[in-house]
Amino acid sequence: MSKKMHFAVILLNCPMHHSVGSWRLPRSLVGYNYARPAFWIDIARILERGKLDMLFMADGVGVSDRYGHSIETTIRYGVQCPTHDAVPLVSMLAPVTQRLGLAATISTAYLPPQYLARLLSTLDHLTEGRVGWNVVTSPLENALKQYTHDERYDRADEYLDVLRKMWSSWEPDAVVMDRESGIYADPAKVHPVNHEGKYFKVTGPAQVPWSPQGHPVIIQAGQSDRGLEFAARHAEAVFAVHQTPAAMKRVYDDVKARAKKYGRSSGDVKVLWGLMPIVGETEDAAKAKERALIEAVPQLGGLTQLSTHIGYDLSRVPLDTPLEEFGAENGEGLLQALSHGLGIQGLAKMLMKENIGRSVTVGEAAQFYGSGIGPKIVGTPLQVANQLEDIFDEVGGDGFMLITHYLPGCLEEFVEMVVPILQKRGRFRTDYEGTTLREHLMQE
Amino acid sequence: MSKKMHFAVILLNCPMHHSVGSWRLPRSLVGYNYARPAFWIDIARILERGKLDMLFMADGVGVSDRYGHSIETTIRYGVQCPTHDAVPLVSMLAPVTQRLGLAATISTAYLPPQYLARLLSTLDHLTEGRVGWNVVTSPLENALKQYTHDERYDRADEYLDVLRKMWSSWEPDAVVMDRESGIYADPAKVHPVNHEGKYFKVTGPAQVPWSPQGHPVIIQAGQSDRGLEFAARHAEAVFAVHQTPAAMKRVYDDVKARAKKYGRSSGDVKVLWGLMPIVGETEDAAKAKERALIEAVPQLGGLTQLSTHIGYDLSRVPLDTPLEEFGAENGEGLLQALSHGLGIQGLAKMLMKENIGRSVTVGEAAQFYGSGIGPKIVGTPLQVANQLEDIFDEVGGDGFMLITHYLPGCLEEFVEMVVPILQKRGRFRTDYEGTTLREHLMQE
Repeated sequence: MSKKMHFAVILLNCPMHHSVGSWRLPRSLVGYNYARPAFWIDIARILERGKLDMLFMADGVGVSDRYGHSIETTIRYGVQCPTHDAVPLVSMLAPVTQRLGLAATISTAYLPPQYLARLLSTLDHLTEGRVGWNVVTSPLENALKQYTHDERYDRADEYLDVLRKMWSSWEPDAVVMDRESGIYADPAKVHPVNHEGKYFKVTGPAQVPWSPQGHPVIIQAGQSDRGLEFAARHAEAVFAVHQTPAAMKRVYDDVKARAKKYGRSSGDVKVLWGLMPIVGETEDAAKAKERALIEAVPQLGGLTQLSTHIGYDLSRVPLDTPLEEFGAENGEGLLQALSHGLGIQGLAKMLMKENIGRSVTVGEAAQFYGSGIGPKIVGTPLQVANQLEDIFDEVGGDGFMLITHYLPGCLEEFVEMVVPILQKRGRFRTDYEGTTLREHLMQE
Repeated sequence: MSKKMHFAVILLNCPMHHSVGSWRLPRSLVGYNYARPAFWIDIARILERGKLDMLFMADGVGVSDRYGHSIETTIRYGVQCPTHDAVPLVSMLAPVTQRLGLAATISTAYLPPQYLARLLSTLDHLTEGRVGWNVVTSPLENALKQYTHDERYDRADEYLDVLRKMWSSWEPDAVVMDRESGIYADPAKVHPVNHEGKYFKVTGPAQVPWSPQGHPVIIQAGQSDRGLEFAARHAEAVFAVHQTPAAMKRVYDDVKARAKKYGRSSGDVKVLWGLMPIVGETEDAAKAKERALIEAVPQLGGLTQLSTHIGYDLSRVPLDTPLEEFGAENGEGLLQALSHGLGIQGLAKMLMKENIGRSVTVGEAAQFYGSGIGPKIVGTPLQVANQLEDIFDEVGGDGFMLITHYLPGCLEEFVEMVVPILQKRGRFRTDYEGTTLREHLMQE
């Protein structure tokens, strides 16, 4: 029997998600609706109808001033700004869904560990075991500046240790709730944490009893060496974006090998590949959608998003600079990281989807990048299903993190047109077998 | 026309709220349900059916070891433990209610101000303007120990200043969302915060545009002199617990007078008096309910709650100590504070509701206190309505914060039996006039 795929969808609690200007598309209903419940309830129910594993909420705190040392273009073109808090969305969706996993991105930089332990346990109870936590270590402005990138991961390692101690401080059967004697819980089964480490001192125990999953599904998305090590130790799902199946396979094998060092099996950590399906009733219709998406990106908006993501101010670079001339002294290392070994020229070709017979410029690349991160899989439902299967089989697993364009339509199309093909081929579940997010992810 | 009352309900995201052992009562459905959505959705809809102003979620982080320097009795009798996070409840209730105000208690001690500013704006959008924030300054273990009580309020003053700057950093019409030009927002209407104070340095602007209420309704509950000063400056609603109308009136006049110092009018800050209505079809039935509630308190549970609330370890005091002998050296000052000027002996009588012809012991007082804070208003629906009107008119306003016993039944009884009487008398609204929490509270 062929391995089955897992599917998640990545969104931001904002009007443009990962495609600058996608809110302008005629079929986008995002408008002001992103701030209110109905829009999200609709999306969650579409995903649940499709039996997808989870809705994954990205998040980040702060308004970027990376482009031209100013927030002006970030605000003007709504470049991942506004971005509302992801956590209220996750809890708001608890009572209106039954099976869909719900994951939120929360940094280890802002909240005391005992506070976040309690928040996540609360969510795991509210959702009856459907919560995931995407661990990021990104700092807020003026916070954790004393630490290097690697030290922030060291601190996050300890942070997770504290959370695990909190989450297991109540034994699963500690709550007795005996009306007769008035005994609520057995103190012998509730244990202080008494953690004293390099970064944290926490007495415990938790304020919340053992939750349906014990603890949320741990997810990780950083792609640095230190980030992958963190993932290998803690993560149950890894979200990664790479441009080619060959690059995906390298990371896939790497993650699984690292996990073994920590006594974990290859199946304990699932890798989900970010990509954007663009589905049309015909190939031409799909390509027209892709063009419209790219054209909806205001060039300055695309440059702002690319500047923010690579951490380099592209306002200092002439827009007609050929991408391959954008060398190391101009942050090429970072752009290189984005291309994940494909090389700048390869990335340029990949970005433009065809050999246009000349160099791709920084301006063109920014516009393309602004239309959405990750590879775009464009075609009829059958073509998209075929491409997904090809990538999946070449890489070896485990599934995909879908990146969206117009909402909620693009998700309806995927669920109604692509999912049934994969189900018929036995490559995707026809129903949830378990009730928790962990069970969904571990289902083979 | 007589002044109308406001009604809120105070709850904790836990199985026992403010009455230790109330989960044991035959009519309590709280069981494990407190951790899941359905129980809360039911409660919120009852309150909305009654046209109440808001559901007010108390909260606190940590497991008390005040009694006997141990968490044992806290765990065994479930003394406000478990307590889950209040915030996920508030957002979870957003899509299943239309008018009810939803307030959460969040300390200024845990979250960076820009983080909480974003969270509260997110909630104000999600609820379309129905969010309130009860500001507390209580520290987490090992946090803010460097500050005195008054310094924590100084810090909270600055914290609120930062939040106000964040909340007004987007002008109400900054979002343009022009599909044609691709302009999302007008940068000229989004202003950095550039706050540099004694405690915080925040650049801003906010990541969330102007929310339906501009900012959440600010609520305050601390009763110290410094706390009242803070309330007079910031709060739109004050929650206070006092045993007699005379004590309530003193605080009422005090709060209104302090508010004027900050250029605010008497109506800008509403005071809500905590009390517990116990309604029965007959007076005897109501009294029997009160007795059952008090008898449901395990004595050690009551002692644990009282120890935690007065900050004094009652395990060192023999249970048969007459309350009036529990002098200053044993924490009388704190117990005195609880009685708010009534005197220990007066409090003892008040607690026991009758002159029992002898001294009340510490053990008895703890048991009574453990059954719920604040005065109990016991009787038929008519008697309860009459007592509420009497207190209201003697004090001069503004309304009540209802303290509950068995859930959700006691709220159903209040809404179905007491509210209609007050509505018929023109003392409570028959429908919401506005859509936001602030409009509910300001409605005269």
